Amino acid sequence: MKGFQKLTSVEHALEIFMETVPSKKLKSEEVVLSSALGRVLAESVVAVEDLPRFDRSAVDGYALRADETVAASQFKPKTIKVVEHGIVSEGQAKQVWTGNAIPKGANAVVMLENVKRVGGGIEVWVALTPGENVSKKGEDMAKGKTAAKAGVRLTPYHLALVAALGKTEVTVFAKPVVAVLATGNELVEIGGKLRSNQIFDSNRIMISAMSRELGAKPLDLGMARDDVDEIANKLAKGLREADAVITTGGTSVGLVDLVPDAVNKTGKPGVVVHGVAMRPGMPTALAVANRKPILVLSGNPVAAVVGFEAFARPLICRLLGLKQTELRPAVKARLAKRVVSALGRKTFVRVRVVERDGEFVAEPVSARGSGTISTMTEANGFVVVAEDREGLEEGEVVSVSLFDSIREAGASV
Amino acid sequence: MKGFQKLTSVEHALEIFMETVPSKKLKSEEVVLSSALGRVLAESVVAVEDLPRFDRSAVDGYALRADETVAASQFKPKTIKVVEHGIVSEGQAKQVWTGNAIPKGANAVVMLENVKRVGGGIEVWVALTPGENVSKKGEDMAKGKTAAKAGVRLTPYHLALVAALGKTEVTVFAKPVVAVLATGNELVEIGGKLRSNQIFDSNRIMISAMSRELGAKPLDLGMARDDVDEIANKLAKGLREADAVITTGGTSVGLVDLVPDAVNKTGKPGVVVHGVAMRPGMPTALAVANRKPILVLSGNPVAAVVGFEAFARPLICRLLGLKQTELRPAVKARLAKRVVSALGRKTFVRVRVVERDGEFVAEPVSARGSGTISTMTEANGFVVVAEDREGLEEGEVVSVSLFDSIREAGASV
Repeated sequence: MKGFQKLTSVEHALEIFMETVPSKKLKSEEVVLSSALGRVLAESVVAVEDLPRFDRSAVDGYALRADETVAASQFKPKTIKVVEHGIVSEGQAKQVWTGNAIPKGANAVVMLENVKRVGGGIEVWVALTPGENVSKKGEDMAKGKTAAKAGVRLTPYHLALVAALGKTEVTVFAKPVVAVLATGNELVEIGGKLRSNQIFDSNRIMISAMSRELGAKPLDLGMARDDVDEIANKLAKGLREADAVITTGGTSVGLVDLVPDAVNKTGKPGVVVHGVAMRPGMPTALAVANRKPILVLSGNPVAAVVGFEAFARPLICRLLGLKQTELRPAVKARLAKRVVSALGRKTFVRVRVVERDGEFVAEPVSARGSGTISTMTEANGFVVVAEDREGLEEGEVVSVSLFDSIREAGASV
Repeated sequence: MKGFQKLTSVEHALEIFMETVPSKKLKSEEVVLSSALGRVLAESVVAVEDLPRFDRSAVDGYALRADETVAASQFKPKTIKVVEHGIVSEGQAKQVWTGNAIPKGANAVVMLENVKRVGGGIEVWVALTPGENVSKKGEDMAKGKTAAKAGVRLTPYHLALVAALGKTEVTVFAKPVVAVLATGNELVEIGGKLRSNQIFDSNRIMISAMSRELGAKPLDLGMARDDVDEIANKLAKGLREADAVITTGGTSVGLVDLVPDAVNKTGKPGVVVHGVAMRPGMPTALAVANRKPILVLSGNPVAAVVGFEAFARPLICRLLGLKQTELRPAVKARLAKRVVSALGRKTFVRVRVVERDGEFVAEPVSARGSGTISTMTEANGFVVVAEDREGLEEGEVVSVSLFDSIREAGASV
């Protein structure tokens, strides 16, 4: 009987896997800013000039000399003459809009709402300190400073900062290509004709979408029948054309470990972990062949999701060039019902977090099997039960990793 | 002096705006499943068949009759004969893999780890109940049930569920087109030549990226000089070609309200809110012309972001066809430092949330002006200070809306 004798903990399995996957220099490419959202910066962007390039007004108002407003108040306003052009001399002010350069001679700006226009001048109602309401040259980003570091995922705000520095392009890491293969005699292409005992393959589109969501580019390897050679052929294609391969199905605790066998036929070192102390997802196998990672996930959809979260997420984050694994946002919530788990197995419990009376409540989604995809669309997050616990108590405050938005209590799915 | 006499609260402004924006039937389109990730479903998907279509095994093991295992244990195993084909009769079992149909005659599955193979049979070590380890027909999704409701944003799990039902396409709402216009004489196209007192336009790329992130399709209207007619012309183009228009710059508390004037020239009812009791973002204006919404944001980048969060986010969610506004994920964090805000203004404070000793700490990003984009890349979330408060205390637990991932304490930006 093949298969695994003992299970490896999730932490140790990940460690073994990540150490076995060869560290390679990631490919990079130049992209225009408008296409760079969500990409990972490969080369830091350094400010070649101060930002702003000149002292400018942070408000709409009048630029003047701060020392001329000493002790000014609504009861004792200070009257100052308004000039239209040129420098601001003693006793003068010049109107400025937000972002305008501070005219020579001025060192502060009084806000519009703190003055009253009178004839050719203004009454100033407040005392100003030098530099007040002025954005100093270099305040946003000083020349020579790093505006965005290599390894960061570009948000709209990074794009704005890079744009403000005048750069039209950035160097980002190439999107890692993740090949996705589904295995199993029972599988039929979506929309095809089902014979009895057959099912539509839903794992491939799900794993591809999960990879895409993280920023990778999925490559469809199609489906393979339960045949070691056929699986090995498709794996080889994936290893040639992609940076990583993810398979579903064909791995178990049992007699037939088709995909692990095919992986071991494909290249060295082959399978490095088979059987993980987690639930669901126990038959997950981790492998490296031809210097590229292969992730062998269960054919059960929920087990495949959990295997993906535990192993594909850190792997893809590394292939993306991110400095660390991007975690899902987590919220604290009160568990609505007791949950039972197996001692010695890290257990992933699907829950639905709702807001009730201003508090987050996590309702475990009925403990149907890991084959039921609908529990994933009913849930919006999962709770991890540690290996040294046999469950979680009702009312316990848990941390929920969210994979969908939180809906109002009572709203249907 | 034009401009606004009094400020409208954020809540009331949003209410006025959303009530003024005409409710229109949203366009929809058919897309293949592999392109449907993140799109919003326009037509509910109903299960045309039971899922699974047949009783199937939830585990790897042996299908048998539960009543034959009564009182079986490791000390008193029950021996059962294994058959290869056909139905399972009395005293028989048949090997099944996860997902296999349950053979006729059997009503439960004993897991591999709970049996021992002996000769032509198995020793069963556990007692089973009828239905144990069987995924019942229709358990995942019963025929006629709604698998995914119109108005839901499609996750990888929705795609899997729809795929499992055999559907290759879904009907989703068309992506709303959001036209983006930047205004201001000081603006220069990124990469162009700056003269003194000029800056690169960074708002357009940022607002476009924020719109894209939400699922809209940005349309670039370019830049307009500070000229009412030029602005009005570009607005008119945006209203013809897009579902909404967002502008930045040219709105203030002051003498010159170029964009609001241009909006009012463009169509009725024109500006419905001008001046919002928020900080930053006070000069935000909300308008409708030619039955389409126009959002007039400040030219200050941070004020533009805040105006976008408060008004463009709910607007775009509605145009996407979502049932409710999608909020950013929020975490509770302890405020590291006192924050001062203005009474009567809803204040948006940029903070950087880090995890320190297992607790989330929110560090206010130095209170530089709303013109400093770098505060947005240093921060990863914002805290809202209510209108009836003058600030937040050090150590206070606040809710932070996250717009970037949480980094480890001490990690540089």
